[in-house]
Amino acid sequence: MITISTIKELREALSVHKRAGKTIGFVPTMGYLHDGHLSLVERAKSETDVVVMSIFVNPLQFGPNEDYSVYPRDLARDQKLAESAGVHYLFTPSVEEMYPRPMLTNISVHNITEALCGLSRPGHFDGVATVVNKLFNIVGPHKAFFGQKDAQQVAVIEQMVYDLQIPVQIVPCPIHREKDGLAMSSRNVFLSEEERSQALILSRSLTRAEQMIANHQRDVDVICNEVRNLIQSQPLAEIDYVELKRYPEMSDIEFVKTGDRILFALAVKFGRVRLIDNVILTVMD
Amino acid sequence: MITISTIKELREALSVHKRAGKTIGFVPTMGYLHDGHLSLVERAKSETDVVVMSIFVNPLQFGPNEDYSVYPRDLARDQKLAESAGVHYLFTPSVEEMYPRPMLTNISVHNITEALCGLSRPGHFDGVATVVNKLFNIVGPHKAFFGQKDAQQVAVIEQMVYDLQIPVQIVPCPIHREKDGLAMSSRNVFLSEEERSQALILSRSLTRAEQMIANHQRDVDVICNEVRNLIQSQPLAEIDYVELKRYPEMSDIEFVKTGDRILFALAVKFGRVRLIDNVILTVMD
Repeated sequence: MITISTIKELREALSVHKRAGKTIGFVPTMGYLHDGHLSLVERAKSETDVVVMSIFVNPLQFGPNEDYSVYPRDLARDQKLAESAGVHYLFTPSVEEMYPRPMLTNISVHNITEALCGLSRPGHFDGVATVVNKLFNIVGPHKAFFGQKDAQQVAVIEQMVYDLQIPVQIVPCPIHREKDGLAMSSRNVFLSEEERSQALILSRSLTRAEQMIANHQRDVDVICNEVRNLIQSQPLAEIDYVELKRYPEMSDIEFVKTGDRILFALAVKFGRVRLIDNVILTVMD
Repeated sequence: MITISTIKELREALSVHKRAGKTIGFVPTMGYLHDGHLSLVERAKSETDVVVMSIFVNPLQFGPNEDYSVYPRDLARDQKLAESAGVHYLFTPSVEEMYPRPMLTNISVHNITEALCGLSRPGHFDGVATVVNKLFNIVGPHKAFFGQKDAQQVAVIEQMVYDLQIPVQIVPCPIHREKDGLAMSSRNVFLSEEERSQALILSRSLTRAEQMIANHQRDVDVICNEVRNLIQSQPLAEIDYVELKRYPEMSDIEFVKTGDRILFALAVKFGRVRLIDNVILTVMD
């Protein structure tokens, strides 16, 4: 594995492979890698010739009171994990390399971003869309691999790729979970033992919502309220949102019906750690 | 010359040349071609192997009360002109091909767009940046050629390319003028004989501003006011703006000084036709 921190060197390295007709797979991350990230690498290895992972904690996508400065970083550890997972190029630009001057260009994706994390984190998805667009321009991947834990992010990026006809195929990949159900996240490291234990309510909530829908509950308010009550049974849980939306449009639904493709998504804080989790499903008869 | 109207066919055609190591030159236009456009083709031919011209009157960059519906269109005429100029591929997508669904993705370039045509035409440069970005993704050119008559547009696109690291080189090309000085524009066709004659005041105004600066006038207000008076000597002229800005930043200047790179730009309506013209220069001692 070769670690590269400048745009110029990465482009030069990849152009050799492109001229040789190799396909490039791209896994953009913010680092502090876990098995979820590594499963994306696995998928990329199975579908493309050369796997590029980026590690960049993108300041544009953090709000002023969010956890940019304390977001976990450990490059040495990440390099080992990425190398053993089979990454060929690890791209680790500095903030100065990515944004040598103040960014004047901003990419917004409307509608899809006007719910869930888009409401809780104003500007977040502009930052995501802008940096992902820039990374695509730098890497020029044939395919890019994103985890479905950030389901709204995947929807935003797929919309941007479609709208701007970016020549890349987006490959959404399933959520990776700990054995006890907690969705893998770099932020899990900040949970105290007690918070970690109470956070299991998130995946259980998803199961509960799925069960209710399987049992023909169609009223979205009933489903969401039951899940809210379930989460609030955990004293350390502070709900940001519990929502059921049409996917990937993110539009509102009052009553689900057979055939609807839906996202059931939640964001809950435990202490200072904000966790998200979700399930995407098609409503069956 | 091959005329292509779908994104898929254009990509297929160009991929053959790219695999063969040819460079692609791109001239995006809104059609109704004149010698200004054709000079861009000439330049593209001299710098790249395969020249692609697009003709697309982009609804996103017209305001609700602007001239989208009456913008001049004549594809048969344009095809002849493009072919004799040496265009290899003429890309003529329909609005449905470019925007099959409502565009949810928008690209904004800040600061640079907050003056001149950006003030007079809210949303115009978002539409320009978004469509040019999309066309770049479709064509994948090595170089793209733009006329300096739209000096602010060139600045916006260069900023977007820089900020997003789009792998294309922007080549700004000089303004093409009629023998009597009128800057070539597809919109000139709408001028009455009287308006056409009075519109010569625009290029003369640029000359006057240049002379004043050459004669060491440094006060921007004095320069702009003199030019405004000059333009207002023409009874059919209705000034939208007459401005002197730092280029390409588009920031304000009170007093120019030696070494400043500046844009002197104006927009003036004659009847229903809004014309723009400008000169970019470096202030000499």
